Amino acid sequence: MKLWGGRFTAKADAKAEGFTSSISFDRRLYRQDIAGSIAHARMLAKQGIIGEDEGRQIVDGLEIIAREIEAGRFPFRQEHEDIHMNIEARLAELVGPVAGKLHTARSRNDQVALDMHMFMREEIAEIQGLLLNLMEVLLARAEEHRETVFPGYTHLQRAQPVLFSHHLMAYFFMFRRDHQRFDDCARRADVMPLGAAALAGTPHPIDRQLVADQLGFSQIYENSMDAVSDRDYLLEFLAAASITMMHLSRLAEELILWSSQEFSLIEMDDAFSTGSSIMPQKKNPDVAEILRGKTGRVYGSLFGLLTVMKGLPLAYHSDMQEDKEGTFDAIDTLKACLAVTAGMLASLKVKEEEISHSFRSDFSVATDVADYLVGKGVPFRQAHEAVGRLVLYCVQEAKGLADLTTAEFQSANSAFADDVHQILTPEASVRARKTPGGTAPTAVAEQIAQGARFLEGARGAET
Amino acid sequence: MKLWGGRFTAKADAKAEGFTSSISFDRRLYRQDIAGSIAHARMLAKQGIIGEDEGRQIVDGLEIIAREIEAGRFPFRQEHEDIHMNIEARLAELVGPVAGKLHTARSRNDQVALDMHMFMREEIAEIQGLLLNLMEVLLARAEEHRETVFPGYTHLQRAQPVLFSHHLMAYFFMFRRDHQRFDDCARRADVMPLGAAALAGTPHPIDRQLVADQLGFSQIYENSMDAVSDRDYLLEFLAAASITMMHLSRLAEELILWSSQEFSLIEMDDAFSTGSSIMPQKKNPDVAEILRGKTGRVYGSLFGLLTVMKGLPLAYHSDMQEDKEGTFDAIDTLKACLAVTAGMLASLKVKEEEISHSFRSDFSVATDVADYLVGKGVPFRQAHEAVGRLVLYCVQEAKGLADLTTAEFQSANSAFADDVHQILTPEASVRARKTPGGTAPTAVAEQIAQGARFLEGARGAET
Amino acid sequence: MKLWGGRFTAKADAKAEGFTSSISFDRRLYRQDIAGSIAHARMLAKQGIIGEDEGRQIVDGLEIIAREIEAGRFPFRQEHEDIHMNIEARLAELVGPVAGKLHTARSRNDQVALDMHMFMREEIAEIQGLLLNLMEVLLARAEEHRETVFPGYTHLQRAQPVLFSHHLMAYFFMFRRDHQRFDDCARRADVMPLGAAALAGTPHPIDRQLVADQLGFSQIYENSMDAVSDRDYLLEFLAAASITMMHLSRLAEELILWSSQEFSLIEMDDAFSTGSSIMPQKKNPDVAEILRGKTGRVYGSLFGLLTVMKGLPLAYHSDMQEDKEGTFDAIDTLKACLAVTAGMLASLKVKEEEISHSFRSDFSVATDVADYLVGKGVPFRQAHEAVGRLVLYCVQEAKGLADLTTAEFQSANSAFADDVHQILTPEASVRARKTPGGTAPTAVAEQIAQGARFLEGARGAET
Amino acid sequence: MKLWGGRFTAKADAKAEGFTSSISFDRRLYRQDIAGSIAHARMLAKQGIIGEDEGRQIVDGLEIIAREIEAGRFPFRQEHEDIHMNIEARLAELVGPVAGKLHTARSRNDQVALDMHMFMREEIAEIQGLLLNLMEVLLARAEEHRETVFPGYTHLQRAQPVLFSHHLMAYFFMFRRDHQRFDDCARRADVMPLGAAALAGTPHPIDRQLVADQLGFSQIYENSMDAVSDRDYLLEFLAAASITMMHLSRLAEELILWSSQEFSLIEMDDAFSTGSSIMPQKKNPDVAEILRGKTGRVYGSLFGLLTVMKGLPLAYHSDMQEDKEGTFDAIDTLKACLAVTAGMLASLKVKEEEISHSFRSDFSVATDVADYLVGKGVPFRQAHEAVGRLVLYCVQEAKGLADLTTAEFQSANSAFADDVHQILTPEASVRARKTPGGTAPTAVAEQIAQGARFLEGARGAET
Repeated sequence: MKLWGGRFTAKADAKAEGFTSSISFDRRLYRQDIAGSIAHARMLAKQGIIGEDEGRQIVDGLEIIAREIEAGRFPFRQEHEDIHMNIEARLAELVGPVAGKLHTARSRNDQVALDMHMFMREEIAEIQGLLLNLMEVLLARAEEHRETVFPGYTHLQRAQPVLFSHHLMAYFFMFRRDHQRFDDCARRADVMPLGAAALAGTPHPIDRQLVADQLGFSQIYENSMDAVSDRDYLLEFLAAASITMMHLSRLAEELILWSSQEFSLIEMDDAFSTGSSIMPQKKNPDVAEILRGKTGRVYGSLFGLLTVMKGLPLAYHSDMQEDKEGTFDAIDTLKACLAVTAGMLASLKVKEEEISHSFRSDFSVATDVADYLVGKGVPFRQAHEAVGRLVLYCVQEAKGLADLTTAEFQSANSAFADDVHQILTPEASVRARKTPGGTAPTAVAEQIAQGARFLEGARGAET
Repeated sequence: MKLWGGRFTAKADAKAEGFTSSISFDRRLYRQDIAGSIAHARMLAKQGIIGEDEGRQIVDGLEIIAREIEAGRFPFRQEHEDIHMNIEARLAELVGPVAGKLHTARSRNDQVALDMHMFMREEIAEIQGLLLNLMEVLLARAEEHRETVFPGYTHLQRAQPVLFSHHLMAYFFMFRRDHQRFDDCARRADVMPLGAAALAGTPHPIDRQLVADQLGFSQIYENSMDAVSDRDYLLEFLAAASITMMHLSRLAEELILWSSQEFSLIEMDDAFSTGSSIMPQKKNPDVAEILRGKTGRVYGSLFGLLTVMKGLPLAYHSDMQEDKEGTFDAIDTLKACLAVTAGMLASLKVKEEEISHSFRSDFSVATDVADYLVGKGVPFRQAHEAVGRLVLYCVQEAKGLADLTTAEFQSANSAFADDVHQILTPEASVRARKTPGGTAPTAVAEQIAQGARFLEGARGAET
Repeated sequence: MKLWGGRFTAKADAKAEGFTSSISFDRRLYRQDIAGSIAHARMLAKQGIIGEDEGRQIVDGLEIIAREIEAGRFPFRQEHEDIHMNIEARLAELVGPVAGKLHTARSRNDQVALDMHMFMREEIAEIQGLLLNLMEVLLARAEEHRETVFPGYTHLQRAQPVLFSHHLMAYFFMFRRDHQRFDDCARRADVMPLGAAALAGTPHPIDRQLVADQLGFSQIYENSMDAVSDRDYLLEFLAAASITMMHLSRLAEELILWSSQEFSLIEMDDAFSTGSSIMPQKKNPDVAEILRGKTGRVYGSLFGLLTVMKGLPLAYHSDMQEDKEGTFDAIDTLKACLAVTAGMLASLKVKEEEISHSFRSDFSVATDVADYLVGKGVPFRQAHEAVGRLVLYCVQEAKGLADLTTAEFQSANSAFADDVHQILTPEASVRARKTPGGTAPTAVAEQIAQGARFLEGARGAET
Repeated sequence: MKLWGGRFTAKADAKAEGFTSSISFDRRLYRQDIAGSIAHARMLAKQGIIGEDEGRQIVDGLEIIAREIEAGRFPFRQEHEDIHMNIEARLAELVGPVAGKLHTARSRNDQVALDMHMFMREEIAEIQGLLLNLMEVLLARAEEHRETVFPGYTHLQRAQPVLFSHHLMAYFFMFRRDHQRFDDCARRADVMPLGAAALAGTPHPIDRQLVADQLGFSQIYENSMDAVSDRDYLLEFLAAASITMMHLSRLAEELILWSSQEFSLIEMDDAFSTGSSIMPQKKNPDVAEILRGKTGRVYGSLFGLLTVMKGLPLAYHSDMQEDKEGTFDAIDTLKACLAVTAGMLASLKVKEEEISHSFRSDFSVATDVADYLVGKGVPFRQAHEAVGRLVLYCVQEAKGLADLTTAEFQSANSAFADDVHQILTPEASVRARKTPGGTAPTAVAEQIAQGARFLEGARGAET
């Protein structure tokens, strides 16, 4: 069934039909499409645009269709182009010509926009739920490692000791920002487009607010041309998803590094590792690797849609049909990535003994030594210079800072005294950083408390 | 001056030094860097970490430096690598060794983060101001064209008549969303990173809130590792800027189309057009073309930074130094684009007479004819079919719908009557679409009123 | 069957298994995988690494599997992770433990690389064939329109008349470059990776050249680490595909413009247009629109893979598994786009009468008038200025250049004479541009001849 | 001087003028612009289109301008918009009205295309030279480390030992592919566009071949519309540059990893490292980090230009002016990156002793043990399983494979015998992989010889 045959004299080219058909992917919107149509039909009946009876027949038919689809008994057909036409054609089979009245005061342009807005609201909420799950895992692991000292890196060089919980909480706060970005994005998706019709609105006396209320939208589009041509909420979603994937890629990179034989800071659970078809000794962190790799496809979807929308005149163009597959793929990818990351983090083991051992030979308390000199009144730049010389000396002599005598310290700067030896452990270093946001156990406990309050609030808002 | 010489034995390679130096572009942050340093120094003094006197000397020195830079008398040097080191080196010249105390409890990692946060807050506010200017122009032009009928397109085919003001208001609401996105982005940039030091916080008894208060930040980072490695606020800015550029590219495309000889709907002011070096008759809309073209570079900056951040372990890496040039370029581009667009829109002329003439031969009231049949009780799908046949007939006979007799109408569907002729003008079509968001003059007046309220509120919030 | 169970104590997490499994998409490589395995098995037998008999058993088993898959009877299983393991597991069922010998001197790292190289060679050849089809259509339409004058645009303003065939040949030469780029890309894909094993080669006395010969490769990778970690040939393919899509998007844009009511230069065949569900008069060029929109997803795939590969250490990482879906999607998209474009171009109608009529009121011969003055000895810049003034005069008087009297011409520059009227037609303008590459019928005939020679050569090379 | 004033009544808006002006960046093309103009003027004179004398005056004037620019004495002016108009305006000052004849049979559309083609040919050649330098360094370091055993990784897990020279040669072959890609790209840039004029060619009897010959082009564009609207050669360049940057980012990542305290495989020269402003012990590989980061901006330039070109109708549009800055930035970035990489590689030290020591506790000969069993007739999959169990046993017992007794080996598979101990060193593992492309010293020597032959040929071709 082609629903626009009147003006046409020739049939569609077979290749062209396959090319323009979207039913293979937009069938995913069937639930939203039916719910939107039901709300529309009820409004039409309420406004007297169609008869009460007609409205009831249409709604009944649509409910049958919903059940057919859920049961896998619905006859999807490519020649019906898209989900809207598949449903409408079936409705005509079920309830007869009255089906034709459902499209009153509506165009596919505003109909598909409605479907996608509803779909995105639900998907964003699910993604936010998965983010909260992941944050809960981070919080639980941070609780568990409130006192576990861990090497902190900058430039992939050992910099200063941190608490493992502090490191985890850094990710917690990244994901909290992601959660907020999705809130903002959901707010801008929560606008009801129906009633825009093709582009200019409709002469029928519809009640857009009634449709919005039935479907739980808090706003309606204020301009019909904007309503059918706006894809901002998808771009904004893809941008937020890209940033979340970027965060996950950073975490994945760290997990891969940390489970290398060289770093040996954690052990991934066997359930999240795989072996090699040729090298029997291998235990590969390939869940983390694939996680990192999947960043590319989400970035790609964002760039794809930005390209599609560039330079398109108002109002609707079929190019916009290309908004779906990339978005669906980004949603599925992000959801899968958030879920496996939570599992991976929940099950990994921190190699506390190896870590503790590794601190003996690094120089990660050097900043503390410089700060010690500052405490003795030495300007920071001179203190830094003195400790730099001490480190070079240690490297040349194959010693750690803790191995130096007070005299050796004093050869670099005379302000050193015996008490310098009290600050030469990673635990002391960590404990000292107790201002807000620092890595001291007290400061991290405050972060954890903050995090718990956030989760409580967010979980409360879900229900 | 290399501020980290102690541990090193050899000098930097000349090429490497040029490669890592950022002073050529980060000098742009001098104002923020100095303001941040002053706030830091005052806090250090207040907390007794440095002497009151030392604090005063440092602040005085920094103020001199600010004046030197403003006056173009500051000796920027590449060997000092970046803006922070250039300023600190100069400070040492001006106030002596006490300058070395400024870097107490601070690292370049949190210092550069502070500078960029301050910079972005200001730039986002400026961009929002330019958005408001543009929206004011749109609103003024919409006011002026409250009743001007204009062809509405979908698929670049004439679809239904709209008011020109309705078309302009579609852009108004796009830019309003942009404004809101920048609000959200500004909110996430409004977090104070100083005190994170290199990555782990500092053992000095600093007061981060005091620094935040001096600089007008409403929040501080809750985790030091996040504070130095977060670039979300830049990515979010670049995503918002990309979406705004996408909107501008759509508008630019329309202006180019409309000023073509074929569309002939508007005339661009000479001030926004250029000629051809070879074709004397040409009047090219090249401001609009360049505007459209500049979309690419902003998208490019977004993808550049997404690439940079992908897979970077915590905390700071020098890769992040690459966050600046692309962001600066995107800011400058966006500001220039918003300004020229406002000028272009303010000065263009709508060719009302040609437009009015062009409606005679198009079929843009066909939907109204179908809706007329629906009003007579014909199901929409049949009405659509009937009108499709009428249009085909007109095309074959080289007639407009307004040229048909009632009998000709009735040959397509017997429900037609003489009153069909009352709906065959674009004015009637537009007037009929009066539900909220529609293109009727009353509905557009409501949009304009909404827009005016928004602008009033936003301008109020600025001051 | 997990083929690396020995070192592992726990089972894979269900979510992780779904996450890492690639069988849902890499099954597409079954033909290449089996052909590669057969070549490998024959080589192993020939080299005495496995017995002749063992080799024969394996080959027979693989051929059965090929038939099972072709017949849709093959039991694909997600727990076997990928196409390689699915086939090997089935082989073990069919021929017993000897199946285990197939993996001698081979890793999945080089095996999947081999499959993809083989796959890409074939797909690139198919794409090149589709490019040639499209070029044939362009050539045929150019032949047909050797003398059809068409408006030439710059800045979307009418610039100078061109032949429609000239315009088509511009695309011909773009696609010829694309064809060459795919040649180059195919050359770099034509390198055989097997024998690299996991990353370092193998201690077994394999004969890599023998495998290459069996599979028709002209080169082998010279370094095993490069062999398993090289994805350049995919990136290069995606870049070439992106450029081709860019060309198609430009053509699509033109077709959309040209079939607008305003331009009215062509009519798309009904088979490549669709109607509107609400507006009965619409005939939308939505095949061309979707074509233009699909550019985004191919760009997205390129960017996705560039992101994946950025910063990956040698040699193989599971991130690289993400090389497939985007590439497959780009291939399918590009093939579909090339095919529909050929159909669209073959069936469109040029509206010669409307075009001819439209030239009356444009100024596209203005450059010829300036060149006329140059021919009379006036410096180009002055000639340009004079004609500019004439055009402005015409616009103000609502005249065309052909309507001006000789006296009116002379008022702008005294070098004008009566013979100026001979150059005021688009046909004369076109005929005058007869240097190589120009739009004169003779020059275009030369292009068409060149094009025909290229096609003949390229078609010859295919077989 | 506006060269198209005739048709215009109003002056350009100041903001619009700044927006459209390109002189701030296209001045970089002055050398090409002048050389192209000289060739054009000589051709015009030779063809009698301008007088011999006029030609000579113009050429003399252009040569003076070239000297003025080289000497920094040329008065660039923004109001002259671009490099072409700046030069032509100055020419008029120097030689009077005859300057106006230079633009005969030429448009800025083909003129700027000519400039960019010439520019790219030169820049590509320079980049290829830098690639050869880098390959020379790789070859020299490989020569030096013909026998240095190095850990080979997959999934960042130790996989099998390789030679360090083998690892370096993997990069050599990547850069060789890059060199070839730039060859292909240069070939497609080596096409002369002049004579296309605005878009349609010119009625003047020009000799395009003569211009091509003077400027050393081997081909001319066969279609004028293609000539002015083709930007493929820039996109292809940016794609090739992106792939090269991707290679560099992989190498950078490895250098960063290898110089971490944990991997400790190399030591970067101090000249390519920097220190920390706060942590005195740090030696940061920030040249490598910035190198890795710069990948983003080159990817960004590619995507920027792909975006610009998407959907642009023929022929020239001002959007295309946006082709320059991104390309220039990519060129400068790539050149700087290639140069510093060569320096970094030339000066790094391999920590042979630490490496050798690290092999004692890893399992990187496990594949050899499996292959040993295969040599004894055990099917590969069973051998793999047996060795997997041995590794797990070792991990649990904290032993290396070399520490196991023959009896312990036999407990996993009875085919083990005493001779297994002969294969348990990394040297033995490496020596065994001697088939072409493998990591054995003999196989790597062959790669080095191949590489040397390539360099010799490429260096020969340069001169």
